[in-house]
Order: sequence, then structure tokens, then C-alpha cells
Amino acid sequence: MKISGFFAPIPTPFNDREDIDLDHLRENLLKWGRSSLSGIVVLGSNGEFVSLSFEEKVQMIRFCREHFPAEKKVIAGTGCEGTRETIRLSIHLAEAGAEAALVVNPSYYKSKMTEKALEAHYMAVAEGSPIPVMIYNMPGNTGINMSAALLSRLSRHPNIAGVKDSSGNIVQISSTIKDSREGFSVFAGSGSYLLPTMIMGGSGATMAVAGIVPDHCAAIMEALDKGDLAKARELQMELLDLNAAVTSKYGVPGLKYALDLIGFYGGPCRRPLLPLEEGPAMEIRELLLRIGCKLER
Amino acid sequence: MKISGFFAPIPTPFNDREDIDLDHLRENLLKWGRSSLSGIVVLGSNGEFVSLSFEEKVQMIRFCREHFPAEKKVIAGTGCEGTRETIRLSIHLAEAGAEAALVVNPSYYKSKMTEKALEAHYMAVAEGSPIPVMIYNMPGNTGINMSAALLSRLSRHPNIAGVKDSSGNIVQISSTIKDSREGFSVFAGSGSYLLPTMIMGGSGATMAVAGIVPDHCAAIMEALDKGDLAKARELQMELLDLNAAVTSKYGVPGLKYALDLIGFYGGPCRRPLLPLEEGPAMEIRELLLRIGCKLER
Amino acid sequence: MKISGFFAPIPTPFNDREDIDLDHLRENLLKWGRSSLSGIVVLGSNGEFVSLSFEEKVQMIRFCREHFPAEKKVIAGTGCEGTRETIRLSIHLAEAGAEAALVVNPSYYKSKMTEKALEAHYMAVAEGSPIPVMIYNMPGNTGINMSAALLSRLSRHPNIAGVKDSSGNIVQISSTIKDSREGFSVFAGSGSYLLPTMIMGGSGATMAVAGIVPDHCAAIMEALDKGDLAKARELQMELLDLNAAVTSKYGVPGLKYALDLIGFYGGPCRRPLLPLEEGPAMEIRELLLRIGCKLER
Amino acid sequence: MKISGFFAPIPTPFNDREDIDLDHLRENLLKWGRSSLSGIVVLGSNGEFVSLSFEEKVQMIRFCREHFPAEKKVIAGTGCEGTRETIRLSIHLAEAGAEAALVVNPSYYKSKMTEKALEAHYMAVAEGSPIPVMIYNMPGNTGINMSAALLSRLSRHPNIAGVKDSSGNIVQISSTIKDSREGFSVFAGSGSYLLPTMIMGGSGATMAVAGIVPDHCAAIMEALDKGDLAKARELQMELLDLNAAVTSKYGVPGLKYALDLIGFYGGPCRRPLLPLEEGPAMEIRELLLRIGCKLER
Repeated sequence: MKISGFFAPIPTPFNDREDIDLDHLRENLLKWGRSSLSGIVVLGSNGEFVSLSFEEKVQMIRFCREHFPAEKKVIAGTGCEGTRETIRLSIHLAEAGAEAALVVNPSYYKSKMTEKALEAHYMAVAEGSPIPVMIYNMPGNTGINMSAALLSRLSRHPNIAGVKDSSGNIVQISSTIKDSREGFSVFAGSGSYLLPTMIMGGSGATMAVAGIVPDHCAAIMEALDKGDLAKARELQMELLDLNAAVTSKYGVPGLKYALDLIGFYGGPCRRPLLPLEEGPAMEIRELLLRIGCKLER
Repeated sequence: MKISGFFAPIPTPFNDREDIDLDHLRENLLKWGRSSLSGIVVLGSNGEFVSLSFEEKVQMIRFCREHFPAEKKVIAGTGCEGTRETIRLSIHLAEAGAEAALVVNPSYYKSKMTEKALEAHYMAVAEGSPIPVMIYNMPGNTGINMSAALLSRLSRHPNIAGVKDSSGNIVQISSTIKDSREGFSVFAGSGSYLLPTMIMGGSGATMAVAGIVPDHCAAIMEALDKGDLAKARELQMELLDLNAAVTSKYGVPGLKYALDLIGFYGGPCRRPLLPLEEGPAMEIRELLLRIGCKLER
Repeated sequence: MKISGFFAPIPTPFNDREDIDLDHLRENLLKWGRSSLSGIVVLGSNGEFVSLSFEEKVQMIRFCREHFPAEKKVIAGTGCEGTRETIRLSIHLAEAGAEAALVVNPSYYKSKMTEKALEAHYMAVAEGSPIPVMIYNMPGNTGINMSAALLSRLSRHPNIAGVKDSSGNIVQISSTIKDSREGFSVFAGSGSYLLPTMIMGGSGATMAVAGIVPDHCAAIMEALDKGDLAKARELQMELLDLNAAVTSKYGVPGLKYALDLIGFYGGPCRRPLLPLEEGPAMEIRELLLRIGCKLER
Repeated sequence: MKISGFFAPIPTPFNDREDIDLDHLRENLLKWGRSSLSGIVVLGSNGEFVSLSFEEKVQMIRFCREHFPAEKKVIAGTGCEGTRETIRLSIHLAEAGAEAALVVNPSYYKSKMTEKALEAHYMAVAEGSPIPVMIYNMPGNTGINMSAALLSRLSRHPNIAGVKDSSGNIVQISSTIKDSREGFSVFAGSGSYLLPTMIMGGSGATMAVAGIVPDHCAAIMEALDKGDLAKARELQMELLDLNAAVTSKYGVPGLKYALDLIGFYGGPCRRPLLPLEEGPAMEIRELLLRIGCKLER
């Protein structure tokens, strides 16, 4: 399976008691299902996967797969600190319907997570997972970066389908594309470098803004396909500030707030993530207007 | 409850299939129970808590409390990424017999873990935990340091009993002692700065070497009590290299290997932690001999 | 003055006693003068500017301007830790013939180099420098990154002509292009992200490989001009490993060794930079052959 | 020569045009000369050495040696980015009267400053310097830490007399004391860990607060000598907040402002260091009053 296109990493909706809110999730999925998205990533960083139990994770995937169009992919975050637990979760989420496993690297024992240890980890997960593995490099959250050399070595395993690289390091992304096996998918992990990644030969992107302005993202891809570089650049530039607001600057609370404004359900985060403050909220409102969103509140 | 003395953060023993090995744990607990230790910390970083399930954590505490002398304390690691889950785990581990909860801070959403967010998290946990909370500052693993100012503010809560500071930052430790409430326990998080911490007014230490050479650690405390600073310094100096080997240098695999050599059961780690390599193994062997341990292999 | 094109940051040649070797410099300049380079950067990181005296800096610029074609630009590194000294050096190097001043930010007092302090510094330098200022963002060496917001604010000053961004952060580069004043030049600071930078609207690059394979760099620019993106990407990909070898991996000793191999004079570095070891030397030899260089040794 | 005692790293006084103000320096030296200080460090981080020219450095040392009591030591900062220049400066400052050279490590080419490169650098400087070398480890400013293993190896050279360790890492300080040669001086690089450093066998300290409250620092040393640990700890605790204010928090501008308040001349810093803001100024004023200083403004 070659994974390509652009995916929205969806948040997990909670009610005011911090319980998963399936009714609102259904409504969100219905809207995303009608959009130009290639698929969704469930249980990623934006899905607050670190705050969900094993059972909740299974429930989320089962529900999403059931309520999302069959022709669009559901990728599930299955990374845990332990190798064994990551394999077990990959098996369960595959059974629940996930088509691929997005596996963030273990990171608690930072100084022991050498390339040798990470390589052994991913090889074991690739062996044990019934669905293709997509490596998830997220140094901003894990404090560990996986090098192009490591990623390229891992790409040799037939069950490792690609990498979502959220480092934003375009040189590393370029080197990974150059040195990995034919057919290996390199994804931009954020919308702010979608165009540079695609230019260098990337296969797609997983990006929070795709859940907010999927048509804008689709338009970048189309401009690129047509060779209209000026248009692609212009659209990419327009995406930068909104992208920053719902990722690096204000995180999941920012993303959920943006979704609330445009007619999806965002809702609160599980603690320790705090609700968005007023200044950032105003900023997100303005950025949504500027990029052409119709606000419902 | 004032927490003081020196504690061994015990590793979780696994068999070759990576399952918890209760028989060997019982034997270890029997030996530690006869030693000069004030107590043990179960499910800390050395306990590979990030690779254990909720159920395994409950089982570990129940078993440890049952097989460890009642007059010695069992402190349980209860920190999770989510606030709600941390409270839930604290309640269950309290029921299982833990006398205090060691709570490492959430760290995945690094840039959102502001002092405000961490303060709200710990206040909620302190409210919800039926047993006293000991804050666990472990920047080497979490990538986040909690300042003396934050720790001192948190010390005002009556159910926050202390902090195990593994930063090794003696200025921060001193400032925390100076500014926290009377009766708040500041613990050295590693054996390499036990003496400086006690000199500045610390209440004790949680340190991997305490599980290997408890009498050596006790001798430092005694020399200090007697005002024999020269002796205390000499003993502290002797501890440095072994301490580094079973913590920062070789981590849990180093600690488990050392235990194997001196007649405890160490055994393998859960992956992704790799087995110790030969060079480090030889080094640990020599360091144990140098500090006077009798090797059983 | 709009600065554009691609520049080679040239090394300062030393003899075996670590004295500047003007004869060899003349020969190098003659060759670079005949190449497709837009100009050279003298006294940059590759010029070991931190190991040169004020007088040596003046001498270098005077000599380079004299022996380099008048129609090609000479940009001089003038950044010092002090604001006043930076201005004084800019004045002297302008008199010596430099057409622009590349100003790395002060970085010794790291925690005090707030955006406010850096803004005041650059505004004062821009006021005092008789030649246009090009900001030099080099976080790998300085430990400080200058944000797109700061760079954009600084771009408003008419005597700040551009930025050489060596962060490699393509999002920051994109945002700087988007938010800076019309006519402000954003340069890639290394050859490994030349194409992505140009795609996003950059004006050029200053890159060590330009002094080794200027025609290869020119070919990327030409392919881009013709809209032949596939060709541009292929050429960019071919540049990556050599670029890494003479910058991030082996630094100035790597660059000088590569120059030695292809018929320029590289020579030794001033200490504390150590001579290249054998393994890296072999690697650079192979990379030069692979990219089509004719080796003269 | 065994270097011991406590030293004040003095700031370089400037007038409003940023020129060195020798008249005010003379007055300051007169007062410090009458105090309990063992000596002064000139051209350290607090001396803004990075903003001074070679000639100004020579002038500073000559003037200080001339106007400071002959029985008290003058240590000169001689570290430069280049090895050769560091040796040259050490020779000139020795001729100007300095009794020891405080040598900060080169740090601009961060990734190339391996332990091997730094060892070669310091060995060459030790060979070339006519006065004893004191290594200066200042990771907060240089971005590089020198390990206890490196420091201990360097201690074998007879002309390397000691290290001023400003890392604040008490474990590293302890290990350096344990593993370095007999007679090697390990100094606390800041007043906030004077007591822990002395307890572990340190030989003294170089600390900004020593220039403000020398008697308070002397009292810590005396309490230690008498074995009055409780008193020593109390005095150390009282020093913490003021020490932080004139070092890590507000830097040289904070130190100079404090000196201005207590009757010394502080004056402005050379840019890019900004003048102290009002809030910090108020804070320093209060901290000085709290520790018992008589304010003259």
C-alpha cells in the first residue's frame, strides 16, 4: 500500500466531563467525509492519544471507521512507550478497522533511545503489526529526532510504508526522500511546509489545517499538479499563520477552538491542556476570516 | 506525613517473555526489607512505569506492599499524561497500599506545559489523591524542568508532601528548600548529590544505588548526623561512579545488571530498552568490586 | 541595492604557521572570479572570522576586492559581540571595498539577547553602517535563532537589505519572505535547501558548495528559471551529501580539504579547528567524484 | 601556585559614551582592595570581555594590577576563539601584571568543539601561557559543557591550575574534585553553590556577589572553617536571591546597577546589553536592603 494525499489529524471530542463525545464525533466525521480529504489520522498528537486509555483508543477507531466513508483511509496512532504494547495496540486497532498505524517513537528514556534501540523497536513493530506502519517523527513533543539515515534504513522493511515528519527540517525530509526505498511515503507533518515537501518529492501531508480548510489544501495540490508554482506558493503563504495558530502556537486547544468557530465540534481538551485564552481566541477568529472561512459563532 | 530518609526506586522484574516475575520480586523485597532502607519507590523511572499497564501497576503495588515490611514505606509512581488518569491511578494505588504518590509531570505537549498548566495539574491531583503527593521533577526524561518558584507555590497545598528533584541542580534544590513551606520534603533524585542536598537542608533521597549499597548510603547519613563531614564527603565521592553507571550512563539495564551481579534478580528490561553491552557490563562489575560488593556471579 | 544570486562563503587561507596566505588567496580568487558565482562572502563562518584580528579582516577585504572581478560582489562579515565594534568594523570594511555587511548577531550573553536587544543592536548597526546590512541568522553556531517576526520588523529599515538564514527552517524562511518588506532579500544559508528557498520566493543563497561546484549550483537556478522542476529537484538532491560534508558534518576543515582536492588552495585551519581525519577525507573524496569533480590529487 | 579563596569578577566601567572610565575604576578598586576579597577576576563574563579590544584588555589589566593591593591576586580573562590569539593575549596580560589566566573555551564552531579539540586547545594554551591557566566552564554562555573527565585529564598539565565551573552542576564539580590531580583548584563559578562546592572539597569561588557583599561571602567561609554548618547554610540561603538577580536573571546590567546603589560605580554596559528595566531595578534594591546593604541612592 502506498499512502499518499493529505490527511486531517482529527481531535478527540470530549464533553464537559472530559468523556468522549461520540455524537459530536459522528457529526464531524460526516462533514470531513464529504470533503476533499484523502483520509483522517485518529489518535495522533491532535487526538490527545496520550490521555486516552487502551479501550478508548479501540472505541475511537471502531467508531471512526464505521462513520467515515470506506473509500477514505483511517490511520490510527498506535505508538506507546513499550515495544510490546505498541504491537498489541496495532493489532487491536487493525481489528477495529485502521488501515495503517502511525507510530511515534518511545521517548521517555531519552538517552537510551539510540538509533540502534529505535531501529530494533520499529523493526519489531513492523514485524508484529498486521497493518502498514507509518513512522511518526515529532521531535517537538518527544525531544528526539530520527535522522534521515535511520528513516532510510527503516524504509527497507516492507511493512514500513512511510514517515510523517513533523520536524519541519526540509533538508532531512529531502534526504529521506532521496535515500529511502522506492515507494516509501514521506509526509509533511504540518501544513506549513506542504509545498516544499511536495516539491522535493513528498507523497502527502498530515496536517491540522486540513481539517479546517481542506479545499485550500486541495487547491495547493492541484496548483502543483498543473505546474502553477506561483499559485501554489501564494496558497501556501496564505496558510502559514493559521497553521501556526492551530499547531505550534496554541496546540490542540487552538485547533478545537477553530473547529468550534466553523461549525464543527471542537469542545474542551482533557487536562492538563488548558482552555484557550482570549487573546489567542481573537487571533484565531481573525485568521479564519482572513483565509475565507465562514464563522458560525 | 513528613517523608524522609532514603528510598530505593526498585526496578520491575521481568522474565524472558517480558512478563512481570513476581517470584523474583518477592525475593528482592525480602532482601530490601532487611536492609537499612527507609522504603521503596515502585513504578518510578527505574520501574519502567511507562511500559506497564494500569492493571500491572495495581498488581505491583499490591504485591510490594504485601511483601515489604509494614514499617517501611511504599511510594508509588502515579504520574500519567492526563490529569484525570493520574488521579484515578493515585486512587487505585492508594487502595493497593501505597503510602504516597510520586507524580511525574505530563510532558508530551511540551510547549503547552507552562507553569500555569502544571500548577493546575498538580493542584487537581493533590485534591483528588487520597494519599500525599510527591512531585517528581525529572527533566532528563521529560524535557521539562519545574522551577523552585513553581515547586514552592505547590508546597502550600497540604496534600503535596514533597518533591524528588532529579534535575541535579543544587541551586534549584536550595531555593526550593528555602522557599517551600515548613515540613515540605525535598529529596535528591539521585545518589550523586545526596550529601550536598542534605547539607542544604534536604529531607532525603530516592536513588538507584540505595537498592545496591544501602549500607553505604546509610553510612553517609550517619556521618552527617555525627557531624563527620570528612567521612561523609569521602563516602559520597566513592558513590559517584557507580551511581552514574546505574543511572545516567547505562540506565535501567545498568541497574538491573548490577542487581543480578550482587544476588538480587535484575533480569531483562521491556523493549525498547536494550540489554547492556559487554563494555558497560565489565565497567559495572569493576565499580561494584571497588565499592566493596560481594559478587555472586 | 537588491542582493540576489548565489555566493560562495570563502575560507581564509592560512599557511602552516597559521598566517594568512595571500598568494594562494589570489589564485583562488582568480578561479572563483571566472566562475558563475554572483559574488563571494568573505569573513563568514567559513572564513574563520572569529579567529581573525581587526587588521587581518581589513586586509582580507581589501585584497579580495582588489583581486576579484569588479562586477561581482564582495560581502564582508562584520558582526562582533559589541554593537559599537560592529559599526566600526562595518565602516572599515566598507572603506576596504565591501559592498555589503553580513552581520551575525551577538550571542555570548545568550539569555540577555532578547528580541528587544537584538532589534536595538541591528537598528544601530543599520544606522551606522555605510553599506547595506545583511542579517546573518546562524543558530547552529550562536545558539540563538532570530524569528521571522523579528526579521520582518528589521526589514523595514532601508539599510537592512536582507537575511542569510542558516537555520534551515523552511517555515521561518517562508514567513520571513511573506512578512518582510518588498525588495528584502531572503537567502538560503546552505546549499541543502536552495531549491525550497527559491520556490518560496527567496532571492538567492550563500553556500559553501558554491565555491566547489558553482556550475552545479547555477544549473539549479537555470532549471528553476525554465520551470523544469524535475531537473531542479534532481540537481538539488545530488547536492545534499556533499553539502552536508563540507558544512554540518566536517565544517571548515572539510571545505578546505575539498578545495585542496579540486585544485584550489584550502590548507589548514587555525586552531582550535582540527585537521580532517582520514575517514571523513575519504568520504569527501568520494562525494566529489560522485558529483563529477575532477580531482587534482 | 594553588589558587584559592573567593574572587569578585569585576565589571568594566564605561562612561556614557561607552568608553572605559578609569577614574571610576580606580575608586572601585580602592574599595575592593580594602575588603576581605582574595582577589579579582578582570575581563570575565561580568567584565564584558567580548566587547573589549585587545588594547583595552591590556590597559584594564595594567591599571587593575597597579591600583589593587599587591598581596591580592588579579586574574585575567584571556580566552579567545583562536588558540594562537588566546596564547598571545595570555602573554600580553601576564606582562601587564596578571597572576593567572582565566580561559573560557572557544565555542563558535560548536559541533567541532569536541573533547579532543578542546583538549588540544587547552594543552597548547597551557604550554604557551607564562602564567597558570584556570579553565573557565560557562555552558550558559558558550553552549558547551566541559565534562569532569575532560577537566580531570587537563588537570594533569602542571600549568593548568584549576577550573572555574559555572555550570552549577554539583555532580560534575564533585567528580572533577575527585578525579583531578592533587592541588588542582575547583572553583564555584557563582555564589549560589559556594557552600556545596566547598563541602565537596572545592578551593574557592569566583562570584559576582563577592563584589557586592564580600563580608557575607567571607562569613560563609569562616562558618565552614569553624564547622558551623547551620550558620554556613543560613548565610548561603540568604545569598541565593541576590546572587540570581545579579547573574542569571539580570546579568551584567543587574550587577552594575547593584554596584551603583551601594556606592561603587557600575554605570552603563556596552550595547547590545540593554539598561536594566524598572521592575528588576526595584527588585535588586529590595534584595540589597534585605541582605543588609546600605544604599547610597
